[in-house]
Amino acid sequence: MSKINTRPTSENKLIKLLQARCPVDSPFLKKGIGDDAAVIRPNRAEEFWLITADMLVERVDFHRDWTTPRQLGRKSISVNLSDLAAMGARPRFFTVSLAIPLDISERWILEFHDGLTWKGKSLGAHLIGGDLSRSERDITISISAIGESLNRKVLYRAGGRPGDLLYVTGDLGRSAAGFKLLQSGRTDSKSRVRKSALQAHRDPEPRCDAGLWLAQSGLVSCMIDLSDGLSMDLPRLCVASNVGSEIRISDLPVFHESARWGFDPVELALHGGEDYELLFAVPSSKSGLLERTYPPVLPPITKIGKMSADVGNVWVTRQGKNRRRLLQHGYDHFASHITKNKKK
Amino acid sequence: MSKINTRPTSENKLIKLLQARCPVDSPFLKKGIGDDAAVIRPNRAEEFWLITADMLVERVDFHRDWTTPRQLGRKSISVNLSDLAAMGARPRFFTVSLAIPLDISERWILEFHDGLTWKGKSLGAHLIGGDLSRSERDITISISAIGESLNRKVLYRAGGRPGDLLYVTGDLGRSAAGFKLLQSGRTDSKSRVRKSALQAHRDPEPRCDAGLWLAQSGLVSCMIDLSDGLSMDLPRLCVASNVGSEIRISDLPVFHESARWGFDPVELALHGGEDYELLFAVPSSKSGLLERTYPPVLPPITKIGKMSADVGNVWVTRQGKNRRRLLQHGYDHFASHITKNKKK
Repeated sequence: MSKINTRPTSENKLIKLLQARCPVDSPFLKKGIGDDAAVIRPNRAEEFWLITADMLVERVDFHRDWTTPRQLGRKSISVNLSDLAAMGARPRFFTVSLAIPLDISERWILEFHDGLTWKGKSLGAHLIGGDLSRSERDITISISAIGESLNRKVLYRAGGRPGDLLYVTGDLGRSAAGFKLLQSGRTDSKSRVRKSALQAHRDPEPRCDAGLWLAQSGLVSCMIDLSDGLSMDLPRLCVASNVGSEIRISDLPVFHESARWGFDPVELALHGGEDYELLFAVPSSKSGLLERTYPPVLPPITKIGKMSADVGNVWVTRQGKNRRRLLQHGYDHFASHITKNKKK
Repeated sequence: MSKINTRPTSENKLIKLLQARCPVDSPFLKKGIGDDAAVIRPNRAEEFWLITADMLVERVDFHRDWTTPRQLGRKSISVNLSDLAAMGARPRFFTVSLAIPLDISERWILEFHDGLTWKGKSLGAHLIGGDLSRSERDITISISAIGESLNRKVLYRAGGRPGDLLYVTGDLGRSAAGFKLLQSGRTDSKSRVRKSALQAHRDPEPRCDAGLWLAQSGLVSCMIDLSDGLSMDLPRLCVASNVGSEIRISDLPVFHESARWGFDPVELALHGGEDYELLFAVPSSKSGLLERTYPPVLPPITKIGKMSADVGNVWVTRQGKNRRRLLQHGYDHFASHITKNKKK
């Protein structure tokens, strides 16, 4: 529900429908559904507390044979903490609910749990509860992560203005390249580059430190994490900020090496998903200061375009070609699938 | 993980194993894994904030055909809020992660959501986020509920002393009777009693008001909610409090009417599960005051026995018979099922 999109796919439409049906009115809530995490303001607390939830379903979001249980545990918490990173919050706690079929071994569970808890701990988040359930066939992993603001500085999807420059951390499309390698069974390799793609997909690194720095800097107007692909997440940022945007293909920090394996690095960067990098906007007057002061120890940032007054439209320019609208080909769980009004 | 048990079943053993592997050390955490909810103390906040998580899996925890989507939504939030009731906390917020197969209709989702959000709201808890995912076959519902203490008074499983008197709210075994009626297809009835059993199973009422009153009263030494049956949850309370206990069968507020349908009301009260009533202990010096001041508008309370110094043992006495040990026949997801050390 924290995922709001612009395209009238079933998933987006559905979430909007749901949101409208039961309005929330609480003095403790600063931000509810519609951002990467909800923001709670406990009475008299020094800081805001944030909560986010994500679910990973076997055969849909992951394949048991493509990952070790330890990697799966690490990824499960990382994708949740990426939502906190997108708000600039510090990870503190998490709960995990796990449904596992009976053919899963005790060792599998222990290794999954070790990956989960140690990765969480390394980023500041402690496991404090959850539920363990049996399932008939597939593994389901559901995590709620809780974070704390620093100096009450939180970044939202809303807040960008026309003219703000758009940046991303890291590079885009590496995880999708890893996914495609796994899909085609090309995993046996000593190549460092290939390993990095597989690792990006199996064990992504949430940008918690970068998110915190960006929120503290006071230079950023809005932020989101890239989980479903730039072509899905950039429109979300724009809609929340009530702006449009233009990006230049030649400026994207694509994962060029994927071309070696027959993939299109630009396609993967735009639509691949699961990068878990941060996408954020900076007023142009502050971009120089940002680029001068951004710590070199953090993942590099790249300017990819800017926000515009052309509300709701995302334009892409390619060298030597007319600009075109960015099509949303990122990940949607339900595109065209939900059975309408068919009573079950 | 909030469910800790005494019997060395696989589920209990596993959870203990997991707990030991990654110790938690945070200044913001008052109580982690091992109670009905974790207790967080945000810096300078007036109150404690509590978080709990529960997962419902189709074909394991519920059957799509035995319930309406609205009832399922209501039950999903109710079983979570029961964990907050068990600590005496006020429900505030919740997140829901939902995995649904493609054969589920949009109407089903909307009705489920309406049941979920309106039931939550009626008890003070607002939906503030979550995730919507596709699954291959079964529905999985995962909820994290957040509550707030009142005057920092929270009740734990620990705190009971030998001699404390044991009480439960409501009656026991009604939900299990409803489950058995559903199992045997005996659902078509205009009988008020039968309807109440079906309702108790499909749409249980968490004891939030009673839990809050009991926590505020200052008369209660420890508390737990009855989700897996008295024979599973009473030992949990005893272990946490480092005591034993004795209960009298003749004192149990059993659901006598289930005898009409060929069920054993006492068996259902002891082992049935899903009652979502509260079980709590009161020092004997305070029990008179409790019974005089407990508000009649709240679900009735019944004294069922007392805690003892016979640590770890739960004894049951039946009229005219020798006392015997209470066998744990309540619900365990994994009893004897987990595949040991078999590498997947």
